[in-house]
Amino acid sequence: MATAHLLTPPRLHHHPTTTPASSSAARLRVTASLAHPLLNSRLRLTTASRPLRPRRRAMSTTVRSSLIDPDGGALVDLVAAPDRRAALRVEAEQLPRVRMSLIDLQWAHVLAEGWASPLRGFMREEEYLQSLHFNCIRLPDGGGLVNMSLPIVLAIGDADKDQIGDKPDVTLEGPDGGVVAILRRVEIYPHNKEERIARTWGTTAPGLPYVDETITSAGNWLIGGDLEVLEPIKYNDGLDHYRLSPQQLRNEFDKRGADAVFAFQLRNPVHNGHALLMNDTRRRLLEMGYKNPILLLHPLGGYTKADDVPLPVRMEQHSKVLEDGVLDPETTIVSIFPSPMHYAGPTEVQWHAKARINAGANFYIVGRDPAGMGHPTEKRDLYNPDHGKKVLSMAPGLEKLNILPFKVAAYDTVAKEMAFFDPSRSQDFLFISGTKMRTFAKNGENPPDGFMCPGGWKVLVDYYNSLQAEVVPAPV
Amino acid sequence: MATAHLLTPPRLHHHPTTTPASSSAARLRVTASLAHPLLNSRLRLTTASRPLRPRRRAMSTTVRSSLIDPDGGALVDLVAAPDRRAALRVEAEQLPRVRMSLIDLQWAHVLAEGWASPLRGFMREEEYLQSLHFNCIRLPDGGGLVNMSLPIVLAIGDADKDQIGDKPDVTLEGPDGGVVAILRRVEIYPHNKEERIARTWGTTAPGLPYVDETITSAGNWLIGGDLEVLEPIKYNDGLDHYRLSPQQLRNEFDKRGADAVFAFQLRNPVHNGHALLMNDTRRRLLEMGYKNPILLLHPLGGYTKADDVPLPVRMEQHSKVLEDGVLDPETTIVSIFPSPMHYAGPTEVQWHAKARINAGANFYIVGRDPAGMGHPTEKRDLYNPDHGKKVLSMAPGLEKLNILPFKVAAYDTVAKEMAFFDPSRSQDFLFISGTKMRTFAKNGENPPDGFMCPGGWKVLVDYYNSLQAEVVPAPV
Repeated sequence: MATAHLLTPPRLHHHPTTTPASSSAARLRVTASLAHPLLNSRLRLTTASRPLRPRRRAMSTTVRSSLIDPDGGALVDLVAAPDRRAALRVEAEQLPRVRMSLIDLQWAHVLAEGWASPLRGFMREEEYLQSLHFNCIRLPDGGGLVNMSLPIVLAIGDADKDQIGDKPDVTLEGPDGGVVAILRRVEIYPHNKEERIARTWGTTAPGLPYVDETITSAGNWLIGGDLEVLEPIKYNDGLDHYRLSPQQLRNEFDKRGADAVFAFQLRNPVHNGHALLMNDTRRRLLEMGYKNPILLLHPLGGYTKADDVPLPVRMEQHSKVLEDGVLDPETTIVSIFPSPMHYAGPTEVQWHAKARINAGANFYIVGRDPAGMGHPTEKRDLYNPDHGKKVLSMAPGLEKLNILPFKVAAYDTVAKEMAFFDPSRSQDFLFISGTKMRTFAKNGENPPDGFMCPGGWKVLVDYYNSLQAEVVPAPV
Repeated sequence: MATAHLLTPPRLHHHPTTTPASSSAARLRVTASLAHPLLNSRLRLTTASRPLRPRRRAMSTTVRSSLIDPDGGALVDLVAAPDRRAALRVEAEQLPRVRMSLIDLQWAHVLAEGWASPLRGFMREEEYLQSLHFNCIRLPDGGGLVNMSLPIVLAIGDADKDQIGDKPDVTLEGPDGGVVAILRRVEIYPHNKEERIARTWGTTAPGLPYVDETITSAGNWLIGGDLEVLEPIKYNDGLDHYRLSPQQLRNEFDKRGADAVFAFQLRNPVHNGHALLMNDTRRRLLEMGYKNPILLLHPLGGYTKADDVPLPVRMEQHSKVLEDGVLDPETTIVSIFPSPMHYAGPTEVQWHAKARINAGANFYIVGRDPAGMGHPTEKRDLYNPDHGKKVLSMAPGLEKLNILPFKVAAYDTVAKEMAFFDPSRSQDFLFISGTKMRTFAKNGENPPDGFMCPGGWKVLVDYYNSLQAEVVPAPV
């Protein structure tokens, strides 16, 4: 059963009418929004002007796209139309206000752009319970199940609850106090933190990063409702141009004539083992009959734990990997996935995969121990490293996604390059963990030749050097 | 959504061929196994000889039953045919042996009779992971999802694992060392107790009764496989005649011409509030157009926590309730549900409901805080009392079951009887909890007239008197 929906043959999704991406207005908009530093302008112009390729097995001339359908059939977009914004600002001033943390804001962003389609706002209790118990949510009117493994919820305290009373609508402020959104037809229900943590992480041990950061000190209530965001959420950190929405990504895949999109989720620097895997996946997809598989290299951009490499450093590193030609810019899109990280292993990997369906990916590469970490209080992995891909391949609502299990790559000391591990000569292989990689970079040591492209490695070394420069020595 | 599949109109399930219950051989067997003390012989003879009633909306003469289909389409029966038993005994002597606890044996019983259909044995890892993460299991070949909320697993220790090695088949012994079953094509996988507990109970707090009893000291491995039970499992406690299998229950429902079966799960004595609810449910089903709704009064008979009333006392109490005419023996079947109790609230109530589908029930009555208990270390309910019925009504794989939420009954001090709570005169109502009821019985006090039939109450008083007689006074 675990392999039941691996590597199904190419499928086409038929859209009877012209998609937005194929209208010239939409095409212009997309091109404008894709001032993407990882694609040099020549490549951008080339891809933008390339006509849509004819599709395999096209059944009629109305087929405009082979992209997978978003969950629930239509991509959710919760950003108000520009002509409504003034009125919404006036309305927002008169409503009870709830202040969001940065992580809450990241979730509002995720919701607003439809990564969590068909969710239309922070979860009400009915959605929360389904997510917590079943990792999936039932569509109305017998529409089946969609995957939804993480509770996307907003916690409030007693004072907020009292202030809201039975008013139906609430203004959501960002961390700086600015108006971000209106939450409508709200429902307030108890936030049983212990149960939420136990069912999401499979442990209640102290020291889970997301729990410490967002749950432990959060309020005892959750507030759900329909979200209406006043304008696109931006962080003004110099990286917003990387934050393509699911619709923008779909437009770009369409423009490039993708007949398969394979997503690679990561929150670490890209080494040559990752690149080997991604390039090998493309080769396999071509062998399967796809003509133009596009890679979505999709680093997670929301909250990560303190010892992960920060997003700006990772983006610079990814940029070098494309500059150095390790990945092909013409068949790769680098974009930021705006979700915060839970480190919830098999539960979270479903969210990572599901969100990429909404962005148009029909293939998802899953590695060893996805979204895993060490147990916070015991000397072992928190999750069985194989459970992530097993759970993912069986998850309700993900049947339409092709799961590609990660082949293990390691440093081949004979060939002096990253290569797929060959158990028949295991003594030739060196496994370089994330921790080992960080230790090399911290100590200014070089990893073996061929582990990572030199430009990418330099970004990491510079980052760790800058950290050490900041450390004030403790008095002896 | 929570009410999407409440109270759908009567449906008929068509079986194209004659069911076993309608053959005279099966009929004889059923009648013989139903030497049921709660039905006096006149009634038994009456029901046994009554012809099948014509069905409403019968579409052809081949319709033999209106019972709901078991999960997976066919009821699982893992008891070896009598002519195979001698050979199995010989084979069993040559295999590695694993000793089961009494609770393991209860699960083997549950599996053997098909309560957990379509499961064919203790869970392998693939089933375990789906149960733990999704509370449901995917049928092969696109057959959809069936509910499976509790992991039905068998734990073994390192020594057992070493002894088994890579042998495919294992003999399962009962607590007394006798051969019970062979487990075939076994798979041994890690028993991550913390994760199992957290995801099943939504807490890892110490003091969960089932955890203390069966998990904490259990082995670090789980062994799954296909179960072949040598002969029907019996406990020789004087109550085996109450333990009707799902097939026996289906045969009995067929024989009585049931066109609706409504199940009432309980692990407490029946008071007149319960009876009011059950009788009222029958009235509502008649109003809906059913002609012959049958009540399955189905006390849980496996492991329960120490302060619950023991099974033999409960069965005697239930017997008095029928003798005293509080429930109608002609439209009621009392039988024991052999499952152990997890006290896992919303997760467990799905199991309770799902198992009754397999026994032919298409209506399930769900109360406040089903399978709930107090939090083991905090002064609160472990589960939100409303979550059980909410989760049940949304659970994947239970769409075909009609969920009947429990109306709250309390003692009406004006009418001097148990009545449905009327919030407009709440001051007239007295809520008598299980704890209060037990306190009355322990202290030899009588509850208010009309709370419970006198015969049933006497059973409880006698039980608590017998307990006190056993208590040796502590030295002052």
